[in-house]
Amino acid sequence: MFSGAQVSLYPMTDDFVGVIVGALDALEPYRRTFRIETDDISTLLVGPPDQLFPAMRDLFVAAAASGIHCVLAATVSRGCPGEPDDPVCTPIGGVAHDQRVNERIAAAMAQATQAPRTGQVVAAQFSLYPLGDQHHMDEIYACIEFLKRSGVFDRSKNFCTVLRGDAGPVFATLSEAFLHLGAPQGHIALDLKVSANSPTNA
Amino acid sequence: MFSGAQVSLYPMTDDFVGVIVGALDALEPYRRTFRIETDDISTLLVGPPDQLFPAMRDLFVAAAASGIHCVLAATVSRGCPGEPDDPVCTPIGGVAHDQRVNERIAAAMAQATQAPRTGQVVAAQFSLYPLGDQHHMDEIYACIEFLKRSGVFDRSKNFCTVLRGDAGPVFATLSEAFLHLGAPQGHIALDLKVSANSPTNA
Repeated sequence: MFSGAQVSLYPMTDDFVGVIVGALDALEPYRRTFRIETDDISTLLVGPPDQLFPAMRDLFVAAAASGIHCVLAATVSRGCPGEPDDPVCTPIGGVAHDQRVNERIAAAMAQATQAPRTGQVVAAQFSLYPLGDQHHMDEIYACIEFLKRSGVFDRSKNFCTVLRGDAGPVFATLSEAFLHLGAPQGHIALDLKVSANSPTNA
Repeated sequence: MFSGAQVSLYPMTDDFVGVIVGALDALEPYRRTFRIETDDISTLLVGPPDQLFPAMRDLFVAAAASGIHCVLAATVSRGCPGEPDDPVCTPIGGVAHDQRVNERIAAAMAQATQAPRTGQVVAAQFSLYPLGDQHHMDEIYACIEFLKRSGVFDRSKNFCTVLRGDAGPVFATLSEAFLHLGAPQGHIALDLKVSANSPTNA
């Protein structure tokens, strides 16, 4: 299964280049695990699906530590049928898709609520798209039930859902939804924006 | 059919609030047509599907005229089965879905290539997601064929496609793909980033 993300970081400051370059150091521990390519629009991460959200969390928390209003935007994907399998995308932690839905929700809840805190509050707005015909409404309903019980659910909006809280549990909740709730070998895409230090924070 | 977008504008400057507030004037002509709601993460536009990309174009070109590196990120949707029909979403220009694929490509090409120029060069990175089971690979292939012949096709990347050129034809091309290539009553979502004035522009 191919998995990865196109990730962009938007620091709202004249020194946006400095904030981005400084935050990239946070990706160093992931460089052995991921294929990473940058152009003028985004940075491609290709690697284990269970390491994508930890890598994005560390990148974003490093940028937000500047105190500057920052947004991370990412297009995250697994199982795209147009991409070849790639050994670099093997999950490090294993993916427990043989469990029943209730067991997967319980495991996801444990991962999300026990995630280490980072001290950085964020708001995450996202849409999860199950593509192809392997997907079932049971999985969607399970995902919604999980999000509402995750401890970081903020609200539903048109076209998307908002999570709010410490970056640790927020990124862990996103990761669990992406990994464990959706057809095991299906194509899942996630459209994500994460915001910190907004002057209009609700 | 329900149609709309969650739109965010990211000016990479200390005065991001000033650039955003200044650009919002460009939405004035659309306020009679759209329901518009803003929170700390994005602005919701709900209205005619054929006016969404013109509204986003005018907003973004106004922000980019500052010369500041700006990004517009949007989650665009039509036909979401979880949303009610809304009279505000009636297309103003009509949607010619009764035509055959070749005729729709020709019409889309005419709209995209004849779009008025704005004088603002942009790069647009996007993913188009046809959801549900009404969609057929013929429509996807037709969309790819259209994009490659649109005159603003830049390249394919993992998980997305890049267009590059004047904002007029770029937004017109996105609009045509969103409106005319995909199941007529199907659920289509589009994950979009548009960038201008990047110091690392390729």
